Amino acid sequence: MNIKELAELLGGQFCGSDSSVEIKGVNTLQNATESEASFLANMKYKDDLRNSNAGVILVSAGFSNDQDDGRTLIKLADPYLAFAQLQRHFNPSPRASGKRHVTAVIDPTASLADDVDVGPCVVIEEDVTVGSGTIVHAGSVIGRGVSIGQSCIIHARSVVSHGSVLGDRVILQSGAVIGSDGFGYAWDGKEHLKIPQTGRVVLEDDVEVGANSSIDRGALGDTVVRRGVKLDNLIQLGHNVEIGPYSIMASQVGISGSTKIGAGCQIGGQAGIAGHLVIGDGVKLAAKSGVLGNLDAGGTYAGFPVMPHRTWLKVSALIVRLPEIWKQIRKK
Amino acid sequence: MNIKELAELLGGQFCGSDSSVEIKGVNTLQNATESEASFLANMKYKDDLRNSNAGVILVSAGFSNDQDDGRTLIKLADPYLAFAQLQRHFNPSPRASGKRHVTAVIDPTASLADDVDVGPCVVIEEDVTVGSGTIVHAGSVIGRGVSIGQSCIIHARSVVSHGSVLGDRVILQSGAVIGSDGFGYAWDGKEHLKIPQTGRVVLEDDVEVGANSSIDRGALGDTVVRRGVKLDNLIQLGHNVEIGPYSIMASQVGISGSTKIGAGCQIGGQAGIAGHLVIGDGVKLAAKSGVLGNLDAGGTYAGFPVMPHRTWLKVSALIVRLPEIWKQIRKK
Amino acid sequence: MNIKELAELLGGQFCGSDSSVEIKGVNTLQNATESEASFLANMKYKDDLRNSNAGVILVSAGFSNDQDDGRTLIKLADPYLAFAQLQRHFNPSPRASGKRHVTAVIDPTASLADDVDVGPCVVIEEDVTVGSGTIVHAGSVIGRGVSIGQSCIIHARSVVSHGSVLGDRVILQSGAVIGSDGFGYAWDGKEHLKIPQTGRVVLEDDVEVGANSSIDRGALGDTVVRRGVKLDNLIQLGHNVEIGPYSIMASQVGISGSTKIGAGCQIGGQAGIAGHLVIGDGVKLAAKSGVLGNLDAGGTYAGFPVMPHRTWLKVSALIVRLPEIWKQIRKK
Repeated sequence: MNIKELAELLGGQFCGSDSSVEIKGVNTLQNATESEASFLANMKYKDDLRNSNAGVILVSAGFSNDQDDGRTLIKLADPYLAFAQLQRHFNPSPRASGKRHVTAVIDPTASLADDVDVGPCVVIEEDVTVGSGTIVHAGSVIGRGVSIGQSCIIHARSVVSHGSVLGDRVILQSGAVIGSDGFGYAWDGKEHLKIPQTGRVVLEDDVEVGANSSIDRGALGDTVVRRGVKLDNLIQLGHNVEIGPYSIMASQVGISGSTKIGAGCQIGGQAGIAGHLVIGDGVKLAAKSGVLGNLDAGGTYAGFPVMPHRTWLKVSALIVRLPEIWKQIRKK
Repeated sequence: MNIKELAELLGGQFCGSDSSVEIKGVNTLQNATESEASFLANMKYKDDLRNSNAGVILVSAGFSNDQDDGRTLIKLADPYLAFAQLQRHFNPSPRASGKRHVTAVIDPTASLADDVDVGPCVVIEEDVTVGSGTIVHAGSVIGRGVSIGQSCIIHARSVVSHGSVLGDRVILQSGAVIGSDGFGYAWDGKEHLKIPQTGRVVLEDDVEVGANSSIDRGALGDTVVRRGVKLDNLIQLGHNVEIGPYSIMASQVGISGSTKIGAGCQIGGQAGIAGHLVIGDGVKLAAKSGVLGNLDAGGTYAGFPVMPHRTWLKVSALIVRLPEIWKQIRKK
Repeated sequence: MNIKELAELLGGQFCGSDSSVEIKGVNTLQNATESEASFLANMKYKDDLRNSNAGVILVSAGFSNDQDDGRTLIKLADPYLAFAQLQRHFNPSPRASGKRHVTAVIDPTASLADDVDVGPCVVIEEDVTVGSGTIVHAGSVIGRGVSIGQSCIIHARSVVSHGSVLGDRVILQSGAVIGSDGFGYAWDGKEHLKIPQTGRVVLEDDVEVGANSSIDRGALGDTVVRRGVKLDNLIQLGHNVEIGPYSIMASQVGISGSTKIGAGCQIGGQAGIAGHLVIGDGVKLAAKSGVLGNLDAGGTYAGFPVMPHRTWLKVSALIVRLPEIWKQIRKK
């Protein structure tokens, strides 16, 4: 694909002298060669543009030509999105072709579409169904009665425990555990009595779960992760949690049992939310936030316990000055 | 089982008109049908009781009849405990029956009771012993010399590393790693010299370990988790940690090496405790607490570094007001 | 080895009456027998020395003879390092001998040195190379094109995903995931578009990665962990992170994408560092620190957002007193 075609594909404006150069891939500004595209989405890396050998660079529409040193550019509304689209163009999803490794253990009652790939040492238990185009990589375990949709990718050594339901295009990174028992006990005066966890986990279409994350099955009803939710690595969702569509969470977040999170929320790394709460749509939580009460839709919060992010910025600026402030106060 | 029998089983007081209705399971107030029991343990969900179709609802002894709209109730000292007992009645533990999957790799020197179940692709190394009734699910690895007691459940893809000792009725959720090397190095002027970790992990009777949690083996002596301890997902116990009986920890807690925690402690999610400390019996730590010193028995703490929970509530209320307080101070 | 030889091996000074006693191992002060050595590295455990049955005890050069009750001692510059050396002497690394378990699935295009050990149910995909002396334990999955150096230990059920590069003497604890997809999406107005992650993970010589830790592959370039870095359990490194040589991180630390950490840094448990930052050489971060900006070399920091550790100590001491301070202020 030459630069002209590439500009058309992305709907951007070509700026340069020669649009016939062939582009064969995408790379960073630092590493790109003349046959690769690159992009500038974060102005922090502006200086890398000057020294880049990239054949063409995707920049935002407002990027000034003075800054480009005569580089070949494509100007676009959203260069990061354009980069994503280009990466997807050059790196299409792997396609399943019905390979079943001889060491895979597939129960005869399991029903797999013809083109499902099953890797070595995979275990698929009774009454599992798997839709067309799904790939189950080496060493994964799919428990009895699990339903997996079409075009999913189950990376090596994931576990999907009995009764879980996965929609289409779900991706599990390696080590993810879907459907572990929720943490439910009742104290009987002598010991913690384990409460059988009889609910399920439901992951809707286009959900991605990160490496070594764990999502507990419901105690009675289900734990539900709505369509398009993206979860990073080492995240914990407790039993009966519900995550609204297109919400996104960075690594090491923990959500306690029965909490409901709205649509389109963004939760920073290492944040934690207590149990039985309701978090409104579009809420943004900074990294390391701790939430102990319900949060209205649309707010941006930080700190522990959380406060509006704007307040937290002021509070943080004062906290580091506390020793000095205290000295002043004592003088008065 | 009809409602009358159920009230007798639980030792509760029947309140209603017809105690002959058959009950076949337990469900939430929202989803229960007329042939299912439900329960009200958290008054937050009181409104759900009014609209529930449950055949019978477990409530606390003090629950007022005015609130029940003529529902069939069973009144009990502890409705949550009664719910637990009922769930256990309707969902008894799976029973092992001596199934050994043909793909399981069991070393000839391992000694398994006749009725132990071993799933597909399980690896059991030299000199392992496994007691009666234990189930080892698919893909788990049991290292050489491990001893596992009776009626344990080792969920799919757990690892129990060499020399670890598990008591009876121990449950490991998927992805749990028991007996990884502790984090021990000595700086020799040029590099971090790894110190061989030659201790073991001992999990006593009735311990449960959550999904993708890791418990390191001792450096020299053992890491010990006493009877009845319950650990949630993604928890880290460092080498030579000791957890007292019936203590309980929520997800993502981290305990550093050589720290000793007493009996009956409750530790909230994402809390962390530094190394070489002693935490007394019955200590309660709020979520996200950080402990840098010993703690006396019986206290309730929060914050980082921890302070009494009561103090922390006052401190938190003031911290969010710091910008406003500072403004007032500057005016004086 | 008798005590005289042991003192020579460690370069220490023998203090006692009989240096001919045979020493067969190392143990804690509490548990050591007369044929075992022990050590006192932390004066907190001084009282244990008095009651120890150890045949010989390693102490620091400045240790006063008055305190020893006539014990047999070896005095050294660094008793902890000497303990490490002795543990290594008595517990040499296991040696590979070319064992290949019959259930291991090794692709014919993979190239393994003759003496590589491969455990049961291991999967080694196309075009993998593994150097001499490396041991791959049960249930691990090594993805296509991975390169593993000499004398590595891949513990049970690790995953090394396609294209990753491991140097010599790398150790992966059980459940570690190397090369999971980075967390990269672009919002296209309707959904989070997954960006194919086409970079690699590179772990240089002598790196150790803890149990259930996850290291994401680069989005375009590589995620790089330099020689001698030691990572504890449940740690998360985002895509394109770079960790400088001999840095060390305690459990549950999270490093966001594209952040670069210098050489010889020490990062405490549950600390988190935001993305696209530069942390200088030799930086020390206390446990639970949160870093939102670049940090100069050589500093010691704590808190969230981080401040100099010395400031944080003062701030922490004041925060717990805030209710009392506020009361005083209001009186004025």
